[in-house]
Amino acid sequence: MHRIKVKTHKRDEIIDLTRDLQAWLNEEDARSGILVVYSPHTTAAISVNENYDPDVKSDMLCFLKGLVPQNSGFAHAEGNSDSHIKGGLFNFSQTFIVEDGRLMLGQWQGIYFMEFDGPRSREVWVKFIADG
Amino acid sequence: MHRIKVKTHKRDEIIDLTRDLQAWLNEEDARSGILVVYSPHTTAAISVNENYDPDVKSDMLCFLKGLVPQNSGFAHAEGNSDSHIKGGLFNFSQTFIVEDGRLMLGQWQGIYFMEFDGPRSREVWVKFIADG
Amino acid sequence: MHRIKVKTHKRDEIIDLTRDLQAWLNEEDARSGILVVYSPHTTAAISVNENYDPDVKSDMLCFLKGLVPQNSGFAHAEGNSDSHIKGGLFNFSQTFIVEDGRLMLGQWQGIYFMEFDGPRSREVWVKFIADG
Repeated sequence: MHRIKVKTHKRDEIIDLTRDLQAWLNEEDARSGILVVYSPHTTAAISVNENYDPDVKSDMLCFLKGLVPQNSGFAHAEGNSDSHIKGGLFNFSQTFIVEDGRLMLGQWQGIYFMEFDGPRSREVWVKFIADG
Repeated sequence: MHRIKVKTHKRDEIIDLTRDLQAWLNEEDARSGILVVYSPHTTAAISVNENYDPDVKSDMLCFLKGLVPQNSGFAHAEGNSDSHIKGGLFNFSQTFIVEDGRLMLGQWQGIYFMEFDGPRSREVWVKFIADG
Repeated sequence: MHRIKVKTHKRDEIIDLTRDLQAWLNEEDARSGILVVYSPHTTAAISVNENYDPDVKSDMLCFLKGLVPQNSGFAHAEGNSDSHIKGGLFNFSQTFIVEDGRLMLGQWQGIYFMEFDGPRSREVWVKFIADG
């Protein structure tokens, strides 16, 4: 298992991991298999999204802020129940296909760390499983 | 990695992939392991749902239309920020268990491609990882 | 593939599976690889959440009840379209990393079965894939 450090700067932020993940696959000389990308946090998530227009990311964060308002009369004393809920809705792990050493993504896809309770120092854990 | 072509006919549509996925496992003579099903798009998703009453699918699409309205004052110029958000909420990949050559699903489960910005020509990517 | 039986007691309930999953890995002497945790139901989900403050779980269930009300004019005659939608939003499978025989989770993370249409007798299916 490999750990990637991620530094976030805002309460809600979407950070591109694609380059770091491909770089690690290169270092490992990983050829064909699957890559599990995992967030060990409870107020963040791993997701996929468009890598081209930054408006897609800001639209998403803005929509989520309205969908799960921070102050919704939650009981949890830390005041971040909304962050836990967003993490659950977007998922803690994602599994990707690797072929010929390349992370297989659609043309417009990037892999993202979604921060819902920053700024914080975070980690992403990754594991490659070879086929055959 | 194998590619399955999917043709969608509406903006929002749920298409059953179960038969195609099992057929490919049969061709490959895949026995025991896991199957990763991946959508290389940013405005679609892979999910699981009831395979019996079609009302479950239409209820879900109708609910999502209300939850993430297409015209919510989004900035993204293509006018499909709602499709990106729905894709993220429903996930881009799903991992299934395969035993004795059979895709292990609950009695009422089917595996679905969820189109949120059709009609389009889409692909689903699949990879089988054997155990042992 | 191994089956874990889960008994739920309410319509909406979040049940910790972490101990059972680690116990099964111990029995199997599983060392390094990934663990796929799968729900064969269409009105339940597998997720991750905080294992410390029980308010996080009740806040989440309360929020979901408001987000997807049971009586939203759904067509599905069984009256549980809301449960199907919540299952889709929270996902049917999750993949975890295993190192040195240990399920790799963040300090505050637990793995949960999310019941959205109980009380019922449920199952969770698990499969371990070793690396190397």
